[in-house]
Formats: sequence, C-alpha cells, structure tokens
Amino acid sequence: MTRALEAFARALGAGAVLTSEQDLREFRDPYAYVGWDEFTAGAVVMPSSVEDVRAVVRVANEHRVPLWTFGQGRNYTYGGPAPRVRGSVLVNLRRMDRVLEVNEELAYAVVEPGVRFFDLHDRLRAGGHRLWPSVPDIGWGSVVGNALEHGRGYTPYGDHASSVCGMEVVLPGGDVLRTGMGAMAGSTSWQVHQRGFGPSPDGLFMQSNFGIVTRMGVWLMPQPETYLSCFARVPGDAALGALVDALRGLLLEGVIRNHPLLGQGVGIGDPEGAAAVGQATDWALRFALYGRRAVVDAQYAAVEAAFAGVPGLELTQRAYAGDDLSGVTNHDDRVQCGIPGMELMERFQAPYGEATGHLDLSPVSPATGSEVVAMVERLRALYGRHGIPYIAGLIFSPRSVLHITTSFFDTRDEEQTRRVYDAYGHLVTALRSEGYGLYRTNLMYMDLVADQFDFNDHAQRRFNETIKDALDPNGILSPGKQGIWPKHLRTGR
Amino acid sequence: MTRALEAFARALGAGAVLTSEQDLREFRDPYAYVGWDEFTAGAVVMPSSVEDVRAVVRVANEHRVPLWTFGQGRNYTYGGPAPRVRGSVLVNLRRMDRVLEVNEELAYAVVEPGVRFFDLHDRLRAGGHRLWPSVPDIGWGSVVGNALEHGRGYTPYGDHASSVCGMEVVLPGGDVLRTGMGAMAGSTSWQVHQRGFGPSPDGLFMQSNFGIVTRMGVWLMPQPETYLSCFARVPGDAALGALVDALRGLLLEGVIRNHPLLGQGVGIGDPEGAAAVGQATDWALRFALYGRRAVVDAQYAAVEAAFAGVPGLELTQRAYAGDDLSGVTNHDDRVQCGIPGMELMERFQAPYGEATGHLDLSPVSPATGSEVVAMVERLRALYGRHGIPYIAGLIFSPRSVLHITTSFFDTRDEEQTRRVYDAYGHLVTALRSEGYGLYRTNLMYMDLVADQFDFNDHAQRRFNETIKDALDPNGILSPGKQGIWPKHLRTGR
Repeated sequence: MTRALEAFARALGAGAVLTSEQDLREFRDPYAYVGWDEFTAGAVVMPSSVEDVRAVVRVANEHRVPLWTFGQGRNYTYGGPAPRVRGSVLVNLRRMDRVLEVNEELAYAVVEPGVRFFDLHDRLRAGGHRLWPSVPDIGWGSVVGNALEHGRGYTPYGDHASSVCGMEVVLPGGDVLRTGMGAMAGSTSWQVHQRGFGPSPDGLFMQSNFGIVTRMGVWLMPQPETYLSCFARVPGDAALGALVDALRGLLLEGVIRNHPLLGQGVGIGDPEGAAAVGQATDWALRFALYGRRAVVDAQYAAVEAAFAGVPGLELTQRAYAGDDLSGVTNHDDRVQCGIPGMELMERFQAPYGEATGHLDLSPVSPATGSEVVAMVERLRALYGRHGIPYIAGLIFSPRSVLHITTSFFDTRDEEQTRRVYDAYGHLVTALRSEGYGLYRTNLMYMDLVADQFDFNDHAQRRFNETIKDALDPNGILSPGKQGIWPKHLRTGR
Repeated sequence: MTRALEAFARALGAGAVLTSEQDLREFRDPYAYVGWDEFTAGAVVMPSSVEDVRAVVRVANEHRVPLWTFGQGRNYTYGGPAPRVRGSVLVNLRRMDRVLEVNEELAYAVVEPGVRFFDLHDRLRAGGHRLWPSVPDIGWGSVVGNALEHGRGYTPYGDHASSVCGMEVVLPGGDVLRTGMGAMAGSTSWQVHQRGFGPSPDGLFMQSNFGIVTRMGVWLMPQPETYLSCFARVPGDAALGALVDALRGLLLEGVIRNHPLLGQGVGIGDPEGAAAVGQATDWALRFALYGRRAVVDAQYAAVEAAFAGVPGLELTQRAYAGDDLSGVTNHDDRVQCGIPGMELMERFQAPYGEATGHLDLSPVSPATGSEVVAMVERLRALYGRHGIPYIAGLIFSPRSVLHITTSFFDTRDEEQTRRVYDAYGHLVTALRSEGYGLYRTNLMYMDLVADQFDFNDHAQRRFNETIKDALDPNGILSPGKQGIWPKHLRTGR
C-alpha cells in the first residue's frame, strides 16, 4: 500500500493524494453510527483528467489495490463516498467538474462526473439557455453519479438513467471506451442517438463495478411556455387505490409526463406539515404539466375529469411562465422545474440535528391501486413490528412505483442506529418473500439485496461475475459493489 | 456436422431438423443475387421451448457447430434468416410463438421470439384489450427480433428497443438469465420496471451474438380517445430545413410524441405517388397525435402555429375514434395506430416483381434542419455518382434521424445487384469520413460498418471481443454478427 501511494503521488502529484486520518474523516459513511469503521477508506486520490484516471487504474493493477469511485459522494443514505471494502483507495472525481458542452438546439449537455446539479443548473442559466435539467431532491450530488445509480428527478426527464446518451468509460484494465455513436471517432451523433452499431453496454456501467465513467451526455428539457405545479390530496387510505389508478391512467395516456411523488406526512405541498413526520393521515400527490398554455389547460381539464372519480380528492395548482421562474420559491415547485436546492437536507435533520442519519429502503412495485395499497399496508406493518414509523415518498413512472421509505436515527446512538439497520435486513427478506426487490441499497446491505435476485440459482450473479472476471481480472474496481465480488474475494458461498 | 445433426434430431425430434437443399432454399438471403451462396445455411433446427434452445446450444458446444438465430427472419434487406458464416445451423424460433401474457392495466405483453406483429395485434383484438402494439411497415416480422435489431415503428412506442421491459436469455454456455426485476424468481415487477438491482445487461443482447432471447416484455400503448393522422407537405428542398427545425421543436416539446416519417417520392400520404419513385420533388411528412379530443385539438393548433413559419407548407389530417379503427384503411394511417400489414411489401416489388431486391443504407444524423439538409444533399450526390436514384424515408426521434435510404435491383441480374452492393460499400466509408455511422446493416457489410467505429483504435471491438470470449468461449453463437467474431475466427486483422 505504501508503494501504491507513492506511485499514485508520482502519477497525479502529491496534492492529489490524501492519507491523513483528518482528511479521510470527510469520506466516511455519513449515516452509520459514528463508532463503526467497517467502511473506511485507506486513502483518497483525485484525478483531474481521463489520463489521470487511467494512471490510477494502472497503479491499482500493479499494486493490487482496491479502488472505490464516486462523483460527489453525496448519496448519504447509501453510504456517501465510503467504500464497501475497508482500506480501499477512493477515486474522488470532484476535480473533473467541467460542463464540456451545452447544445441548445438538440437539448443536451456533456458533463464530467464531478459536475453537480447546482453546477449544471448554473451553467444553463449563465449561458441564457432555455433548457432545464432534471434534479433530485438535494442539489449537491453528481449528475453522472446519480444517473449511474438509477437516481430520480421530477421533470419528464426524471428517470435519469434513461436520459443518458453516450458515455466515455475507463475500463478496469485501463482501456478507454466510448459507447453508442461515440464509438466512432469524431462522431456527429454521440449525444443525440442512444444506441450505436452492435450491442449497447451503457447499462453495464450503471450500479456496477465494471468501469469508471469519465464523461456522459445528458438530455435536457426545453423550457416550456407554461409550467403548472399541481397537488392532489385525499384524506386517509380509503381513496388511495382510486387515486393511484386514476394517476396511472393519466401517466400511460401521456397527459402527465413527469414523475409524480405521492407521500403521507412528508410535507408534499405543505412544508410546514413535514414537522409532523409520520403523524399525518392525508396522502398528498405532487405532479406537473408543461407546454403551451392551451395544451396545459386541456391536460389539466383531463386531470380534473380523471380525479373527479376519487372520493374526497382536492386538486390545486400554481402556474408559472417558463421563461420567468423568479417566483418559484418553495421546494415542491422548484424541484419540478429543475432548480436544485438544499431545503430537504435541512428538513431531514429535524429529528437529531446534524447527527441525524436516515436509511432508505425502496422496493419497486407495479403502479396499480391494489398493488400500491397492499405495499403501503405491508410496509406499515413491517416497520410497525420494529417500532419504526412508516414514512414514504412514492415516485411514479407509468407502470412502476419506487416506494422510498426512510427511517431516522441518531448516529451518536449505536443501539438506536443498530435497531434501524437490523430492521432493514428483516424487511429486505420479508419483501422478497412476496416477490418485491429494491432498486438500490446501502453498502451494508448490498450482498443481502443482491442475494434476493435468485432466479435460476442466482443466474444474474453468475453472469455479473463472468463479466467482472473478463473486464477486471485483478478485481481492483469497487469490489463488492452491488454484491459483485472479484474472484479472489468470492469466499464463503 | 453429421454427428451434430444426429444429436440435434435426438434432442428436438427429427421433425425439428431440416437439412434438404429444398428445405434450406427458404432460408437464403432473399435480396442477394440468386447465384451467390456465401450466406447459405447448413441446416435448420426448430426449438419449441427454452429447454429445446438450451439443448441446441449444448449440442453446438459439444460439436463446435456455428449457430445463427432468428425470430422470423423477415428483415429481408439485412439478409433475412441467412447466416453470416456459410454452413451455420439456423436456430429458427418460429415455433416459439406464444403470447404468454397481456396485462391491460399496466399496458404490456410478454412474447416469445416467434410471435409476429400480426400475432400480437390479433391477440390484442381477440382479447378485447384497449392496447395498441407498435408495428413496423411490414407486419410479418418478429416482435422480439425487430426490437433486438433496433427496429422502429410509428407510435409513441416506436423506438422498439426502448419499449422492451425484461428479457429471458439463453447464454451461449446454456445458462438461462432473466434480466431486470426478473432476476428475482417470482418477481412481481419484471415487465413494469426496466432496471433491476445492479448492472443492466439488456442492451448487450441487442444487435449482438451474446445470447438467445427466448422471452421478452414489451410495453404497449393504451388506446387513446382520439387518433389524428397528420400530413405536411412542402414543395422541393427550399423549405426542408425550416420544416425539420419546426418538427424538432414539436417533438422536444412533447406535442408530437410518435416517430414521424419524412420522405420524398416514397408515397407518404399518397400511395399513388409511390409509382414515381425517385421522381417527385415534394417532401411529405407523416406524424400523429393521440389523446383526449380537447388535448389533441390544442396540440394540433400548436402544430399549425409551428408550421405556419414554413414557406409553402400544406397541412392536412384525418381524425379517428380510438375505439373504432374500422375506417382506417390506408397504410399511413394503419401503421401509426399499430395495425400491421403487407402493402409496403407489394409496393416494394413494383420495379421487378417478386425478383425485386432492395438494399437499405441508414445513417444516423442529428435532427437539425441544417444537418438533415446536408445529409440529403450528401446522399443524393453519393447515390448520383453511382447512377442510383436517392430514395429516402427519414424516421425522426426528438434529437436524431434515421435516414433510411434504399436501392432497388433485380436479383436475377448479377451485374446490377453487384453494382448496388458495391455502391453501398463506398457510401459507408464516405459517410464515415464525415462522422456518420449506420444504425444497422446487411450481412455483407457487417464487418465494414463495424470497422468504422474506430474510436481509440477500435476500443468498441476490443470490448465486444472480451465479452464474446467470456460468454461464448467456443464461439458457437452467430459468429460474425455485427462484426463480432469469436477468437478462432479473428484472422486477418
């Protein structure tokens, strides 16, 4: 390791390698109990270019040092920047922070992995571009990192992995690959066409340890004439199924094109109400319409008609001109038009201040009323068994729902933290027994969650291991990520 | 080979193995000169189940016999069912023709690879489902095969590869993989959520020789209240750029959600005009709007407003009730609401009757007016240099265009056929020199087209070969497909 660190410093410069305990403290798992040290890094390297990343990979192969990459490392509930394997060298990509291109006519940008949602938003504003990014609830994350981890935003481009067009990837062996049309040097169409000639490997580099993405095309939303931020509210669970069925119809029909959020007691449409987390019984739905005023009006009338059949539903909306977002001040309205913020971070710290941790557990279900009602009841009962309140934000696509549930705890209290983590493991297997899997998970549960994907005696794991061995024979890149281990660490099964 | 054929017959039954010259004639490259025999099969096997497919793969590995798979083998311009390597055993999947599920609430179907667009359409109609499939111009192809080859249709679900949700794949080694949420046995969400936990391999099984897809989820379009089939026409090239820019705006805005087709002299909106192929100077655009009447009306007004700035443009439309398609009789209107047909096949045989062949060359460009005009002029000049008329249908997505161009010839005339094939090779390299690649190609040009994807000294090829060697060490599956060769056939480079 000492020789590896010397080699990293020779390759990147001494200022690009961090090793002191104090420097490393910033990169621990932020929502683990403060005394746990399973996921602590051995060092941090900070490449500034693709060539630097190649050098890092070369050194890691020579010295057989495990790496762990991140763009910003801000996905705190999943472990933040912390590595799965203790002592790994973190590849901190924050210095690769350039927005390489913005194309207004074709509505895309090309970004490096250190570009934050804030940076992309600011660049679009500064350039006077009539383009909106899609942003998640908290704006300090990496645009690339979020998309690679299947993260979500709330505009029509909110399924971020689907809005990726063209990647540059440093493979574990050091080779540089460009995907899609970018596989042709000097391609005119890298960021406009999602597939190239032959197989498309892009999906392989998401939620994986098969390569380091150093550049990515991301599709943007053209600024609409009108933006309507809409809210529906129903009292209690009685009308929940009807609400979901009406919503699915509107999504499948293309009347609603963004990714609606449905929650109970999480302050949707009413930030004041967030204080009473887990107390409220109303369900609140947030969604948006975008386009020419006449089209939006006709779509809103269709929404009214569809929701008229939902008992007790109240519908409200706030209209904005697409070219003047100065009046968009609250979180709900901002996040649906691509304005990044930090409000939710502050709200999430309400329980225990800066020591507050939270652990998200997010199963996927079909988007029918009966499925959603059953999942809500199931999760409420499961959490209830552990004495944890059920707190959920359901993110909708036309056919599926991410049930984002979260548990808060005080990271200074080991017993309380342990209780939440233990409950998580129980919920994973309980959900699996009824055919539901998670879309993403924390470092601690990557193996357990991967283990639930068991079709044909874990064919997916065998397949992933075959690819892993072919691309990364020394097993240097992010061992254990999403439960994928290199050969020399595949013990105990 | 003889022993392999005996083993296939033992595994599948003698009736599932074809070897006679007469039986094999049906499976030649239908649009090659009748005397060429480079792409002729050695035998045909016809599995009826996943277990049969696994048996075929096992026998092929034992006897080192090259396989070549197809669902229906109807993509005639690309080689139909014919194999890249002479003497390959065709894996004809037509017997796997079950529609395994139709889900009306969640708007999807699950199909086997032998299911034709006709079959899926008929099944939806027979079941009274208010769901429309997306179909390409000719309805006898395989739903699975078309999606895997990046094929297109003309509804909002017309980018077929994007509408795939969940695959079952027999790997070259015989293992069976289910992708996405289907990697969990008994998953509730296989066909509703496109990604699972960890990397997504689905793109790897498209335009590739990495696996045999035996089952696939496909998203369907809910029947809209109103369907408006629309046509715009401009005289000559003068307004072409303005038309494309206006169209791109409408697509990016989400006013037009289907995949418009723009052509010159190919009979769009005027089947009578198709006789004068290559003669007409008008450009005709076909597109559609779908939804509630009031929404569609507002969208049509937006289309009128956007096209008002295009000099000389004439706009027309035909409205249909979504629940009564009985009056939809012409090809243009049928193909935009998912009714499969064979009219275009007949139209394409006009030049030389049943002996007519045609070779499609389809570069991808960005969807801007200046790019499209430049590509039209470039292709017209390139074809002109070979004395071939420029005949094009441009399929639009919001950011990219497939410039489908085609050349007709008499497959009984070797010199004429050769001339068209030779011109094709010249065009591929000429287009590449300006940064344009093809989205798909004929057997004869798979190597040449793959060769144009040359970034970083052909990093894409090295990557594909690494995956190929890992998944198919004996190189039995579709050697040479899309220019990907197994190790023992990688000679001459």
